[in-house]
Amino acid sequence: MNFFSSDFKLGILGGGQLGKMMLYETRKWDIQTKVMDASPEAPCRIACDEFVLGSLLDFDTVYSFGKDVDVLTIEIENVNVDALEKLEQEGITVYPPTKALRTIQNKATQKLFYTDNDVPTSPFSRFAYTSEIEDSIANGGLNLPFVWKSAQFGYDGQGVKVVRTMEDLKDLPNVECIAEEMVNFKNELAVIVARSASGNITTYPVVEMEFHPEANQVEYVICPARIDDNVARKATEVALKVSEHMQHVGLLAVELFQTQDDEILVNEVAPRPHNSGHYSIEASYTNQFEQHIRAILGLPLGKTDSKVAGIMVNLVGAEGHTGNVVYENMEDILEMDGVTPHIYGKKQTRPFRKMGHVTIVDEDMSRARKVAQHVKETIQVKSKK
Amino acid sequence: MNFFSSDFKLGILGGGQLGKMMLYETRKWDIQTKVMDASPEAPCRIACDEFVLGSLLDFDTVYSFGKDVDVLTIEIENVNVDALEKLEQEGITVYPPTKALRTIQNKATQKLFYTDNDVPTSPFSRFAYTSEIEDSIANGGLNLPFVWKSAQFGYDGQGVKVVRTMEDLKDLPNVECIAEEMVNFKNELAVIVARSASGNITTYPVVEMEFHPEANQVEYVICPARIDDNVARKATEVALKVSEHMQHVGLLAVELFQTQDDEILVNEVAPRPHNSGHYSIEASYTNQFEQHIRAILGLPLGKTDSKVAGIMVNLVGAEGHTGNVVYENMEDILEMDGVTPHIYGKKQTRPFRKMGHVTIVDEDMSRARKVAQHVKETIQVKSKK
Repeated sequence: MNFFSSDFKLGILGGGQLGKMMLYETRKWDIQTKVMDASPEAPCRIACDEFVLGSLLDFDTVYSFGKDVDVLTIEIENVNVDALEKLEQEGITVYPPTKALRTIQNKATQKLFYTDNDVPTSPFSRFAYTSEIEDSIANGGLNLPFVWKSAQFGYDGQGVKVVRTMEDLKDLPNVECIAEEMVNFKNELAVIVARSASGNITTYPVVEMEFHPEANQVEYVICPARIDDNVARKATEVALKVSEHMQHVGLLAVELFQTQDDEILVNEVAPRPHNSGHYSIEASYTNQFEQHIRAILGLPLGKTDSKVAGIMVNLVGAEGHTGNVVYENMEDILEMDGVTPHIYGKKQTRPFRKMGHVTIVDEDMSRARKVAQHVKETIQVKSKK
Repeated sequence: MNFFSSDFKLGILGGGQLGKMMLYETRKWDIQTKVMDASPEAPCRIACDEFVLGSLLDFDTVYSFGKDVDVLTIEIENVNVDALEKLEQEGITVYPPTKALRTIQNKATQKLFYTDNDVPTSPFSRFAYTSEIEDSIANGGLNLPFVWKSAQFGYDGQGVKVVRTMEDLKDLPNVECIAEEMVNFKNELAVIVARSASGNITTYPVVEMEFHPEANQVEYVICPARIDDNVARKATEVALKVSEHMQHVGLLAVELFQTQDDEILVNEVAPRPHNSGHYSIEASYTNQFEQHIRAILGLPLGKTDSKVAGIMVNLVGAEGHTGNVVYENMEDILEMDGVTPHIYGKKQTRPFRKMGHVTIVDEDMSRARKVAQHVKETIQVKSKK
């Protein structure tokens, strides 16, 4: 198959920042693309060959979008999988395969997948409705605190909440959900596994994540993670085990907990490029977006080593600011060595909305870490006065 | 000035591969762009916010294109400078400034600039018409061999020819031209200087170029050049001297000869991102396209050091092939570590046409050099049968 400057067409469901960064790679190789998103202001609206405005959750819309592409992929899991399945049955290549996507899309199904395949994960209970949780606590079937997660369509801190008191339950939507035992972890880690259509597999170095305590959004991603080699090895093994059983094609970002006694537990996975891999654009020999494209097209996978240490800082909307975005102190961070901001192109900011990220690279990790802190304290995502 | 996700608009004259790679950076920072090119198949037609089809050499077209942008830049020198001058007079920011562009656009004027400013360059003669050259040789005013260059609009090996015999003169167009003394050089080098609107200056490491002997196109660009520190220092000093006198804003790519006795002579310059800086996308802390954007917007300049050794191989159309392009053995080069192809997106190939490039990066220069050779021998740019 000839992909480069050819008639080949790649379909991408979702036109957000992940799609936007994927398009840098399709442009680099002159691969034709067709992208769909529900927002006319989607960051992908330009740089693709064809942009379709439409709902990712509507069967007919997704089905008709996918009919004329050669390979169909996603940049967000919240898509109509029934339509993808029909396309797959009709001979369109869909990566990740719908089977893997179905398993991942529902967090209860995803958890069951881990237990079914002897993949270490935290204990959990499954509920058809959040309202059933109160009874379960009353019966002694569930103890506070726990992590509540909506089973369907949780994304970036939406649909996830730490429940410490009965009060915390009140604001939650009454939907299918799971309650996970809180993990007393030392570190949150992630491993990105790439698996190509031709069955080749490669892993990126283990990264370490620091989360914002309230918003449940990543603040720093640090590559390589500052952990023992043994722990890194174990984390990579667990990620590979998930990948093997999932039989995905493309990237699989595996989020992990390192417990106090250095056990590795799977938190959750995403079958696509992931926030924890953004550092790779500046730091890695092959960035995650190129690797995803290589994998789904059955091309050889690229080298995943890093050229230099990389740290990523998410740019999220400041609290108390909603409206037309303005990035304050950009010049100050551009003064710092090895600092690359990425502005996703969302016109409206709101508290904790992911508006961009900044990558800091340096030969020396401790210097990179200091610069990252400095970046974090300097740049502000606010609304225009 | 607020550039990011704002109403600010950058105009770019020229929609070829240099513009295309510049657009990766404007997309990364969500800077609005408007691009003009004469070809509806220009690589920039997507990924800009607005594409205008039009002649870069037509006064009215260029003038009306530039009226509503905030900053106007170029990705090719062959543009109507009179229109730019009028825009500049009317308050549009034009970088490079038209004065620098005028000096550079005409190779005779460019050569005079070097002699006027005591910048070392090879001796030359200037002719209003190529037809005058024969007389000059007959009179003993010029000796064979020499390098003939058309004064206007030479680009990428077009308009340059080594004249060794009177026969070689016959095919040349009868235009304003210069005849340069052949330089017996050890190496061809290049230094990219960035100069920002606010007057800051930074230089990239000296690179070493290997040219195709017939097509006069770069085959390999090697960063850093494998030369003595003293020579590198001298090359950088000469480049800075040109930059200082040129008073350009944005990048200035300075092509240099290292003579047999380690003198440095300026060959020619380009006031824009340049083929000799493509390696920087994968190898440098700040790539040349981002640096150009930083410079023309008056932002702080980025660090120009390399993370790893970088070598660039141009992908040019194979001899004997004209028509719809096909890239042969792409999978084989993607198997090699640290190899990144860039496909510009030109649909038609012809012998020696620049269709793309491949960057090879490695911690170890000698390993990178071997891989580069391997890449060069493997990939083929042919026409479809």
